[in-house]
Amino acid sequence: MFESAELGHRIDKKTYDQEVPKLREDLLNCQYDLMQNGKTAVLIVVGGVDGAGKSETASILNEWMDPRHIHSCAFPEPSDEERERPYMWRFWRALPPRGKIGIFFGAWHTAPIVGRVMGTLKSAELDQAIEEIVRFEKMLSEEGVLILKFWFHLSKKQQRNRLKELEKDPRTRWRVSERDWERFKSYDKFRKVSEYFIRKTSTAEAPWIIVEGLDDRYRSLTTGKILLEAIRERLETKPGKESSYKMPPMPPRLDDRDVLSSLPPARNITKDKYQKELETWQGRLNVLTRHPKFNKLSCVLVFEGQDAAGKGGAIRRVMRALDPRIYQGIPVAAPTEEERAQPYLWRFWRHLPRRGRFTVFDRSWYGRVLVERVEKFCSENDWMRAYTEINDFERQLVRNKTVLVKFWLQIDKDEQLKRFKEREKTPFKRFKITEEDWRNREKWDQYHDAVCDMVDRTSTEIAPWNLIAADNKYAARIEVLKTVVKKIEAAL
Amino acid sequence: MFESAELGHRIDKKTYDQEVPKLREDLLNCQYDLMQNGKTAVLIVVGGVDGAGKSETASILNEWMDPRHIHSCAFPEPSDEERERPYMWRFWRALPPRGKIGIFFGAWHTAPIVGRVMGTLKSAELDQAIEEIVRFEKMLSEEGVLILKFWFHLSKKQQRNRLKELEKDPRTRWRVSERDWERFKSYDKFRKVSEYFIRKTSTAEAPWIIVEGLDDRYRSLTTGKILLEAIRERLETKPGKESSYKMPPMPPRLDDRDVLSSLPPARNITKDKYQKELETWQGRLNVLTRHPKFNKLSCVLVFEGQDAAGKGGAIRRVMRALDPRIYQGIPVAAPTEEERAQPYLWRFWRHLPRRGRFTVFDRSWYGRVLVERVEKFCSENDWMRAYTEINDFERQLVRNKTVLVKFWLQIDKDEQLKRFKEREKTPFKRFKITEEDWRNREKWDQYHDAVCDMVDRTSTEIAPWNLIAADNKYAARIEVLKTVVKKIEAAL
Repeated sequence: MFESAELGHRIDKKTYDQEVPKLREDLLNCQYDLMQNGKTAVLIVVGGVDGAGKSETASILNEWMDPRHIHSCAFPEPSDEERERPYMWRFWRALPPRGKIGIFFGAWHTAPIVGRVMGTLKSAELDQAIEEIVRFEKMLSEEGVLILKFWFHLSKKQQRNRLKELEKDPRTRWRVSERDWERFKSYDKFRKVSEYFIRKTSTAEAPWIIVEGLDDRYRSLTTGKILLEAIRERLETKPGKESSYKMPPMPPRLDDRDVLSSLPPARNITKDKYQKELETWQGRLNVLTRHPKFNKLSCVLVFEGQDAAGKGGAIRRVMRALDPRIYQGIPVAAPTEEERAQPYLWRFWRHLPRRGRFTVFDRSWYGRVLVERVEKFCSENDWMRAYTEINDFERQLVRNKTVLVKFWLQIDKDEQLKRFKEREKTPFKRFKITEEDWRNREKWDQYHDAVCDMVDRTSTEIAPWNLIAADNKYAARIEVLKTVVKKIEAAL
Repeated sequence: MFESAELGHRIDKKTYDQEVPKLREDLLNCQYDLMQNGKTAVLIVVGGVDGAGKSETASILNEWMDPRHIHSCAFPEPSDEERERPYMWRFWRALPPRGKIGIFFGAWHTAPIVGRVMGTLKSAELDQAIEEIVRFEKMLSEEGVLILKFWFHLSKKQQRNRLKELEKDPRTRWRVSERDWERFKSYDKFRKVSEYFIRKTSTAEAPWIIVEGLDDRYRSLTTGKILLEAIRERLETKPGKESSYKMPPMPPRLDDRDVLSSLPPARNITKDKYQKELETWQGRLNVLTRHPKFNKLSCVLVFEGQDAAGKGGAIRRVMRALDPRIYQGIPVAAPTEEERAQPYLWRFWRHLPRRGRFTVFDRSWYGRVLVERVEKFCSENDWMRAYTEINDFERQLVRNKTVLVKFWLQIDKDEQLKRFKEREKTPFKRFKITEEDWRNREKWDQYHDAVCDMVDRTSTEIAPWNLIAADNKYAARIEVLKTVVKKIEAAL
């Protein structure tokens, strides 16, 4: 795999000086086209062998283009705010918005490779990490991020010489540490693991581009030209490509039985009994949040349900059990401009709670496979791939010791009509029924199908859906509280 | 001052039960009006005596209103990301956007009060902190934040009883710690300092409201009613109030001498000499950033100047000296939607660098007193108060070990014309001259005056302006680099 990058490629100064001015101008123009176009973010991932010119290449790209619109990030020790979130959080928060260029040094690929070389990661764990990376990059690509992964390579001999050279020159001596020589000893192992990793993570959407790092001019020119071509090609591509996602075949619906219609009705419960049970469960929840180990967990609650199913009421009953200082409610409406400039899930990642805290989502990332699917706000391709992306997202949450509880509050069509009519009568404005509510209601069956698909495809062992019969508000609220309590108890 | 809050106010259950339903409905409606109106953010600051019901009150407000649109924040130990920025950064990042309600527990008032009680803060330092807080709150208020500061009070006897009560009940025992009794011993001192602090920080824009904390019902009802009235009043107030800021009288300009016209011309410098000097200064800058103490500093560079004065070119020469991983360029254009929902300076606070890093602003917060003043994008009141606000902001930066370097690149009108014409000839699109550039040029004199005022009012000892004669691009770039180097050297 590295053969072509060990041939000793060189570019002579004359050729370089001839080619660079045109390339610079093209790159800079291309960068401005990218900004003007505003549809694509460019993410340059930089990896490779120490001393192969990773930071030099980033510097030259900054020199050739307008550095004010390039954001370079390294990922050394995570901050405490980063450590309290899933591992990928630090990368999500650094993603370049559409129109801009980001350069990531040692992104998500570093930890798995180094872990495997050091032996802290088992072979099967590496494979799992690889699978997740492939899916993550595919998602980014589908979301309009142009990913360019450069691997700067040196043969063992080249690396030894390079480190020695740097050491000899007093101006560059500081760059070579004990650690570099230490790592050099693992060259063969590093090469082997990297080769495997590169092979497995080179996909159609985000292939690795291996560049020989020996000669500055060769490396810079190669990288610059690849970058230019890739951005140009992307800007020239007309949108509206074929959907690459197909819905896997589902058993046809031959009868009326589905997960929603099979839900047993809510129990009937008097107001008195409700008040008593409410107090019990709120009390239990409150006590749990003061458990000494609670500070090792984060909690994410997701509420979905038909209009008027009682999401708001249920959420308020949960929140009331909590100290307001430890929760944050996120009512999900139209995304902001900054959110629209990022991949779909970005707007949810940014609200993930720290340890010992709750984020309560009133509607959520499931909007993609519900309202956005039914109302055709996104393409078929987009909502179909969302199932996998959501499962991946939720797995990361759970792995990060997040108690994730997802609720679907279910009412039937008659109950909704009853509640709409009641609401129309209340003078209280927050319950005003809008035209839109009535319009959504007309698409009841489409939403019903979308919900069934959602449950089938995203109710996983680690993040199951809790389907709550909500025809009786009181029973539903108790059920919600009880579920939250049980989940946290299980996690403590 | 606390007399009225030690009278033993009580509300009987019957009155309370009668009043609450109406108050809740009004508050909730008011909250929705606030959201719909979208012009005001409500910030509720909660302070007072331990055990006086601070968190209970926040809970009840969350219960009465829609908690999904209220964000409550406590400010315990700062995270490492917070510690590396000026003290106020953690409050800035938690500010509620327009249309929303934020509740801050123990905001910026806690540290000065506790510090003074503990004796770690001198009396003069407290006064300085107070002055800054007053100006900060005035600024928030001017920026459309409705600030409500509640101080929940208990007399010494009441507090003792309250702590004992909490201890007796097994359900609340956990709330009383050794530390609470320890603090109780300082009651008198705390009371004295608080009284002084409250008096000094009770302004027309953000007065403290002292509420007796003894009786839950009295406290909740009082707080709720005040909140309701304050939001209602704000929503009913027509915008367009009188400017409260007047430009202090300036000596009339009797001759043509001003800071810009008195600037000696740039030295003439050959390209060869420039290349050599450039290398020298870039080298020095690069070495400085690898100084062991550099990681204790942050750097903020601000570039302002006329169109075509060479800001971009100068910035690129600085950036080229730096490892791309340690700088972030922020080209300041129109604010995003999320930025428009916040006080003016918010969009700059969010980009402040961590330790060992640079943020380079290409145009900056000075837009307020330049383009926004001249083009009348903001009211006279807004840009007049900006001078003080900017000075306060910059003082916080410098105090936080930030090397702040501000550049004004100055060219004369003829030189600009020459550069505009040159640019019109280049095929290279990033230098396209727009209609707007020509329009700005017509307002040359107005901009000139605005710049002179800006320099007079914001060139402070700790954050002086560096006026750079930029008629010769080479000389200007060297001057910029040299200044940055000298400033960092002085700080190390």
